[in-house]
This record gives sequence, C-alpha cells and structure tokens, in this order.
Amino acid sequence: MSSLPSSSHALLASLRAAFSGRMVSDPAGMAPWLRDYRQRWGGPALAVVQPDSTADVAAVVRWCVEHDAVIVPQGGNTGLTGASVPLGVPPSRLPSGAPPASADKAPSDDLDPSQARTTGGADARLRPVILLSLSRMQQVRSVDALASTMVVEAGCTLQAAQEAAAAHGRLFPLSLASEGSCTIGGNLATNAGGVQVLRYGNMRELCLGLEVVTADGQVWHGLNRLRKNNTGYDLRDLFIGAEGTLGIITAAVLKLYPQPAGQVAALVQLESPEQALALLAQAQGRLAAELTAFELISDAAMQLVLKNIPGSRLPFEAYPADAPLPWYVLLEVSSLHSEPAAQEGLEAVLSEALADGRVQDAVISQSLAQFEQLWALRENISAAQSHEGKNIKHDISVPISRIGEFIEAASRQIRQAYPDARLIVFGHLGDGNLHFNVAPHARFAQHYDEAFARDEALVNRLVHDLVAAYEGAISAEHGIGVLRQAELVRYKQPLELQMMRAIKQALDPQDRMNPGKLLPTPYTRTPYH
Amino acid sequence: MSSLPSSSHALLASLRAAFSGRMVSDPAGMAPWLRDYRQRWGGPALAVVQPDSTADVAAVVRWCVEHDAVIVPQGGNTGLTGASVPLGVPPSRLPSGAPPASADKAPSDDLDPSQARTTGGADARLRPVILLSLSRMQQVRSVDALASTMVVEAGCTLQAAQEAAAAHGRLFPLSLASEGSCTIGGNLATNAGGVQVLRYGNMRELCLGLEVVTADGQVWHGLNRLRKNNTGYDLRDLFIGAEGTLGIITAAVLKLYPQPAGQVAALVQLESPEQALALLAQAQGRLAAELTAFELISDAAMQLVLKNIPGSRLPFEAYPADAPLPWYVLLEVSSLHSEPAAQEGLEAVLSEALADGRVQDAVISQSLAQFEQLWALRENISAAQSHEGKNIKHDISVPISRIGEFIEAASRQIRQAYPDARLIVFGHLGDGNLHFNVAPHARFAQHYDEAFARDEALVNRLVHDLVAAYEGAISAEHGIGVLRQAELVRYKQPLELQMMRAIKQALDPQDRMNPGKLLPTPYTRTPYH
Repeated sequence: MSSLPSSSHALLASLRAAFSGRMVSDPAGMAPWLRDYRQRWGGPALAVVQPDSTADVAAVVRWCVEHDAVIVPQGGNTGLTGASVPLGVPPSRLPSGAPPASADKAPSDDLDPSQARTTGGADARLRPVILLSLSRMQQVRSVDALASTMVVEAGCTLQAAQEAAAAHGRLFPLSLASEGSCTIGGNLATNAGGVQVLRYGNMRELCLGLEVVTADGQVWHGLNRLRKNNTGYDLRDLFIGAEGTLGIITAAVLKLYPQPAGQVAALVQLESPEQALALLAQAQGRLAAELTAFELISDAAMQLVLKNIPGSRLPFEAYPADAPLPWYVLLEVSSLHSEPAAQEGLEAVLSEALADGRVQDAVISQSLAQFEQLWALRENISAAQSHEGKNIKHDISVPISRIGEFIEAASRQIRQAYPDARLIVFGHLGDGNLHFNVAPHARFAQHYDEAFARDEALVNRLVHDLVAAYEGAISAEHGIGVLRQAELVRYKQPLELQMMRAIKQALDPQDRMNPGKLLPTPYTRTPYH
Repeated sequence: MSSLPSSSHALLASLRAAFSGRMVSDPAGMAPWLRDYRQRWGGPALAVVQPDSTADVAAVVRWCVEHDAVIVPQGGNTGLTGASVPLGVPPSRLPSGAPPASADKAPSDDLDPSQARTTGGADARLRPVILLSLSRMQQVRSVDALASTMVVEAGCTLQAAQEAAAAHGRLFPLSLASEGSCTIGGNLATNAGGVQVLRYGNMRELCLGLEVVTADGQVWHGLNRLRKNNTGYDLRDLFIGAEGTLGIITAAVLKLYPQPAGQVAALVQLESPEQALALLAQAQGRLAAELTAFELISDAAMQLVLKNIPGSRLPFEAYPADAPLPWYVLLEVSSLHSEPAAQEGLEAVLSEALADGRVQDAVISQSLAQFEQLWALRENISAAQSHEGKNIKHDISVPISRIGEFIEAASRQIRQAYPDARLIVFGHLGDGNLHFNVAPHARFAQHYDEAFARDEALVNRLVHDLVAAYEGAISAEHGIGVLRQAELVRYKQPLELQMMRAIKQALDPQDRMNPGKLLPTPYTRTPYH
C-alpha cells in the first residue's frame, strides 16, 4: 500500500470544499463506480463525486478546470461499451468493495496516486480522474400533461421517468431491459433505443431540450419545450449520443404520448426473415402507428429461452420436423381506444397473413398474463444466453429491405470459419437492428478467455465487414464507448472522424470530458489492420 | 460602367475551367439569383455557378479555397430571412434582368469588381463571392418503397420529391406553400416545417442521411439509410438547419410514409385559443396519428381571405353579432384505410365537441372539392394579406399550453402601443407555432416605408420580448438568415452563441460558407439595445 501524498490530500480537500453533494474517495467505497457491470473495463479515480444540483456539477467541472483533472460522467453504469467508467486498469486488478452507506469518507491511504492519475484519453499527461455520478440528481422537475412534455434530471432512472409520466396519464415510451437502473442521462448520452423505436424513435426523437454543463463549467440552459425552434445550430442533438465527451447532460425535456387504452401481442412462426419483412409491410400498411413493436427471433434464440428460463413455453404445436428452421416474430399492437380495437386490428393482419401462407402459425394474447408471457420469450433471450457461456455480441443495423440477405450471408461466412458456431440472432426488425450474436465454438461454454479474445476480433471483423458492405452501422443502439473505437476507425470515412475531432476540439479543447471514449485517440489501434 | 480588370477575367476563366456545370457571370444574367424574392436583401457576385454533380460542387469549393472566394449556396430562393443571397447592396441598386436562356455567357464589362468582392461576412477582407445554385442537381437517385426511403439531390423541388414518392405508392409528407419552387436542399438548410409537422415532424425528422460538400471541398458520404445508427457525433443534424454556413448539402436520404387512403378536413368555429387547445387534446386522444393538421385561424385573418380572395366563402351561417369574435380551426384527418374511416373519426370528435359546447359550429368536407375549398381558406391567408399592404411578420413558437395566454398578452400590448393596429394571427397550433403578423397602422396600406422600418423594430421588440418571457422561440420554422441575427444576440444565452461560433470555426475556419448568415458577426448590431 502506498500512502497518499499530501498533495493528493490537499486536492481532495479542495474538491470537497468546491461543491455540496456527496464525495467518496476511499478505494473500496469507489470500487462499484470504477468498473462496468460486465467487468470488461475499469480504472482508478481520485474521487467519486455525486453532485446534488446542476450548480454543483458546474462547480465540480470548474474545479477540474482549475486542477487539470478529467471527468468521467456516469448514469446507471449499465452501458455495454465501457463509456461510463475510467480506463487504464483491468477490473480484476481494481480494489473491490461495496459503496459506503454514508457520504464523505475521509481519503484512504490505500489510494495509489499514480493509478488515480491514469487516464485513457489522448492526452498522455497524467491527470487526476474524477468520476462524476449523476445518481443524486433524480428529480422530475415538472410534468406538463397538456403540452405532453416533462422535465427530468439526468440521474432519474428510466423507470422513474416512465412512472412520473404514467402518474399524469401520459406515456414516456422508451423501454429497455435495464430500465430499472439505467438513467435518462445515460439514455441520452448513448441515444438509447429499445423495443418501441419502430413507433416512437430513439432517445433523440424523444427529447426536446437539454441542460448541459460544458467543459469549462458553464451551464447551457437549453431546456427547450418547443416542438419547433429554428434558432441556430442543433446543439441538442450534438450532445445526445456524444457519450459524455462534449459536456455533461444534467436535465432534459422529454416528449410524452397518450397512454394506450389497450395492448395485445402476438407470436407468429414463419419461415424466413423475408416472410417477416413482408408481414412487417402488411402490418404497417394496416396498423400504421398502432404497431408498436415488431421483433424478430431466430429459432436458436428461442430454443435457448425454452431451455434455460424456467416456465417458458411456446404457445404453438411443434414445428414440422421436415420444414425449414422456423423464425418467430413478436408483434405488439397498441390502441388508444380499447383492447378489443387492438385485438381486432392484429387479428385482421394475421388472418390475412395466414391465408396467404406468409405466416405458419400465430397466437394472439387474450389476457395481460398471456401478453406478458409472450413478451417474456423475447425479453429473456439475453439472460438465456448467459447460461451458455460467453458469446460475441453485435448490435448492428442494415437497410431494412436487405436484412434477410444479410442474415444469410453473415451466417454462411461464420459457419465457413467456425463449422460448429452457434448463432443467436434476434432484434428490432422494424428498425433494421439486429443483435447478431456468435458463439464460435462449443468450448466457449467453458470460458476459454484467450481463445475468446482472439476469436472476438476475427468474428467482429467478419460480421462488421459484411455490415459495411451492406451500408449498415456497426453500432445501432449501444454506442461506441471503447468497445468499438478501433472499428470506428476502420469503417468511418476519415473525413467524418476529422469533423468529429474538430467538434470535440471546439467544445472540449482540453479533452477533459470523458477522455478516451467514443472518439478514437491517436493511440487506438485496429487489430488485424 | 467600370471595366472588369484582367485579373477578374483570369479568375472567371479559371473558375469556368474548374467544373463542368453551368456558369453565368454577366450582371443581367446573374440578377435573379442575387436578391431574395421579397426584394429585401441582395448583393453582387463574381459568378453564379450551377454544378451538375456533387463532384462539381466539390470542385467549385476547392476553387474557392484556392482563390479565397466565399460561397453563397442557393436552392429555390424562397426563404424569408435572406439566407440564400449575397449581401451588401440593396436589391434596388442591383442590376436587373432575366436569366439568359443559355449557359456560359462571357464575362460582361458591366461588372463592378469592387461590388463583386463585397461580402456580408465577419471577414472584413474583400473576397470574391460565388453564388452556388443547386438548381441543376435535381435527380431522384433512388426510391426504396419497402424500406420507405428515398435518395434525392438537393436541387430537387419539394413537389418533385413528393411526386417521386407518390409514384412508388409512398408519401413524402413535408408540405409548404412554396413546394413548387423550394428545394430539398433549402428545406434541409432551414429545417423547414409546414402544415404536417404535427404528425410527421420538421425536415430534421424526415431525413436519415446527408451528402455534404465541406468547407475544404471534400465530400462527406453520409447518406445513411438506417433507422438506427449510433456511431459517433450527430453531424447530420448539425448541417440540417445550419443555413449553408457549415457546408453544402448535395443530397439526402428522406423518410417515406404510407399514403393515406382517405383524407377529410373540417372547419370549426370556436370562441378562443383555449377552446382550440381543448379540442386539440380531445382530437389527439381520439385520432392520434390520424390527426395530420390542426391549424388555428383568427377571425381577422379569415376576413382578409373572404375579402381579397375571389370565390372564398365561409361554410357556416354568420357568427352571432353579440358573441365574442370567433376563432377558426382547420383539422385534417388522414386514414390509411378509407375516406369513410377518416370521416367517422372526425365526426366522432366534432359531435362530442359540439355537444360539450367546446365548438360553436363545424363543417366536414364531403368531397375532394370541399376538402380543397376548406384548405384554400387557410392557404390563402398570406396572399390575402399582401393585398392590404405591408405587415410585420413573426414566426414564433411558445409552449403549446400557454398559447392562448400569449396571444392575449401580445395583442393587448400591441393595441396599447398602436390602438389602430391590425393583428393577423394564424398558425400551426399543434406545434405551438404562430404566425403573429402585425400591421401597426392603417397607413401601412399606403407603404410608408420609413415608418414601417421604425415600427418594425419596435413591434419585433415587443412581440419577441414577450416570446422570450414565455420561453418561446423567435423563429419556429423560417430560420435566422440575416433577418433575425440581431435578435438572436438579444435572446440567446451568450454561451449558446459561443458554442455555435466554436462549431462554425471548427468546420469552416475560413468563414467561407455563406458568411454573414445565421451567426451574428461582430458587426451585427441590435437596434434599440
């Protein structure tokens, strides 16, 4: 154990005096904030701060400017790309421990100041790292049901935001598996998606205005509640999806919608993604905005759920053994009028599709319990996968009309390289967004980390090269973080990276905001380049 | 007449050799491009260029970089804020003339090179001005009906884009009075709105990707066709609404929608904007996405149409003379299923509203002819106004729930300052967007230009101060251009202007792209400051 130099004590004391929220600086207390939940990335920090207010966030940033510290903002720390934690030390080498029950522990002697000054950013100087958690800024500031807007703070969980809207008879439609712990700030920083994007759009489409603390510690009062505002460059959409690298989102104006009066779901069996696409076109033509989800599920994904999630069962008879492997689609229809209206619309679509032979079998939920059972088949895919060991995840999108062709080509290439590969394909078909997950070897079930790391790079290359050939995106809804930086360099037009760097330089010239995330630094190397 | 110095001849010859499209450089030939259609702004240019292709646009920009020229991009030149023309010379002092029938006239001796080097930008150096018209880049590159996307070039008129979508059985929903001549590039540069924003959003929401020629003459291939793409900063939305000051949009991927199978319109009479708001909430609750327009019209605006547009008539009996002055709402309902379905939904809403006394009278269109007659009452307001002399136009938005309160407060203040003022109020109520137009004196009918100019600044101040107090926007759909620059300085948080300047500096460090537009230059003064 190294002792904390007196300069660090003085630093911490001055940081503690600079703002009024909570501060944690002992390594065990900080531990939960310093690694992502999948334990892939992590690094040390001088302190974890939890400001109470926007003024507090600005005070912390100004302190960082004065002391040349860098800031890692963090919401619910549920991201999948490493954007919300410091970098530089593998999670296994970080101290472990639970967050202390009370605030403001004195600085511990355990801290290794050289580690605490490591940053993953482009800047090679060792600068103190401050982890800024928005978790104490959870207020729903206001709900305007008539105007269908709501102002919430960045640390408000998605679920709390949904509930606040519901309490005023409105719907906030973003919906994600992690909604109980992910935050509105994190949803904005990553432009989160989910199962209702088909109808309501990504987080970007659900946000009218932002309050942001800039890299020099000023507060931008951009809480626009207007549907139309053409007064200058669109700064809002620049901060959305920037993964905390341009400023810290502290609050947002969110769009609300009428709550549906009735919802029904259906699970259908069909023979190919092409049939699913035809069904999508038909359902959109008939149901328009009432079609609120259209999820594609491969048989392999469905079988994992049936095997690993107790109580799961398919509502159909067995698929004929001599037929091609089936695919499944989960449709959700929401009606503002009534559940029977939703039911009627869905039945009309499915009976036509069954008559045309476009769909092999279909079941419509007849109760809330059945509605939830059908959704559970979709929502449990990730959990079911984790029972089978590691797999290589891809969150990609391709033009919707080519999605079947893409799945076929990618599956063929993977199987050529790895004849025993297991492909777990599912996703938001209506958005062209697939989770195309690959376990290239059966032995992955036994956690061969080294083989996994090598295969991960190879499989990513194979899948993402094909995505590029189909004019798709290597990240549809998870963002870049550190996970996809090297690939960003490979697939983005250099001019686009150049413009992104120019914007970063313009708004954060000291590379103080979440350095080393999203934008590839000069040190980022593409493997197998 | 001054003769063109040989250096200018050489310049023009080198420009002519640099790209393969059309070039005009005689003053009479250039005249139509060098002033806005309302004759408020204008200025000279060395040449008007009309490139044929994106590569051509890039070649012109690179020529400008080499010769330190500045570029004014232009679409249909239908904007209302002066963003699409050079600056520096009042239109009345510019040469007049029709565009020549054929291309590439030799440089004329009429050109005053000192004028041709005037620029309205921040840069005090005199730099040659090139007017770059996108009018020859009109191609619809592709339509993907299944994926509901379309790739069009910037010079394609809005109407041609609508027609291309319709030819594939799809709807491109942006709709503006100037759709026959305004272009997709201009629609994007100003983030255009219109009457269907309530349902489909502004141009920003209708665009998935862009192709842009940057300030250094590179081509950004950002023609993303994906619904979801989270790979870096949102450059698309930065170029949209930037009024050509960050780069030149040369093509775009547009979102398409199903074509409605039936549409009906209704005109209703009611007593106040508050009643209109209550009707809006009721209609949205019942009709949701089938409600495609909700336009508020004041009695004064309606009377102008009835008086000045031949053949206009109200479909109701006269409003009782002892009742408060009426307001009107035009609702449009679109059904994907059938016209009777649209009719039924609208009837259900209106019979409930009539029964509740929320609406005094209502008429639903029973034929296409009636549908068009009702819409003509709304669409002819601007034309009807122009019969009555000048008026001071405001394109403002306020939070929807406060719109009635705002109209009342603004009207009261205007009437205090100008007891005989005529207020022409109408707009897109569902978006909180009002056209709040003021003729402060009856004498405006006789064009007292000097009084108009003085009153314009005073009335703008009065209306826009109130807009600011209501947390509204001084430009909802028209943009800033030069018309609203001084006011932008007054009403924007200085930090926001500072960030906008930093972005301009990052992407266009030589202030080459449409200098002097949108962003206030150091020379922009706010009157009455």
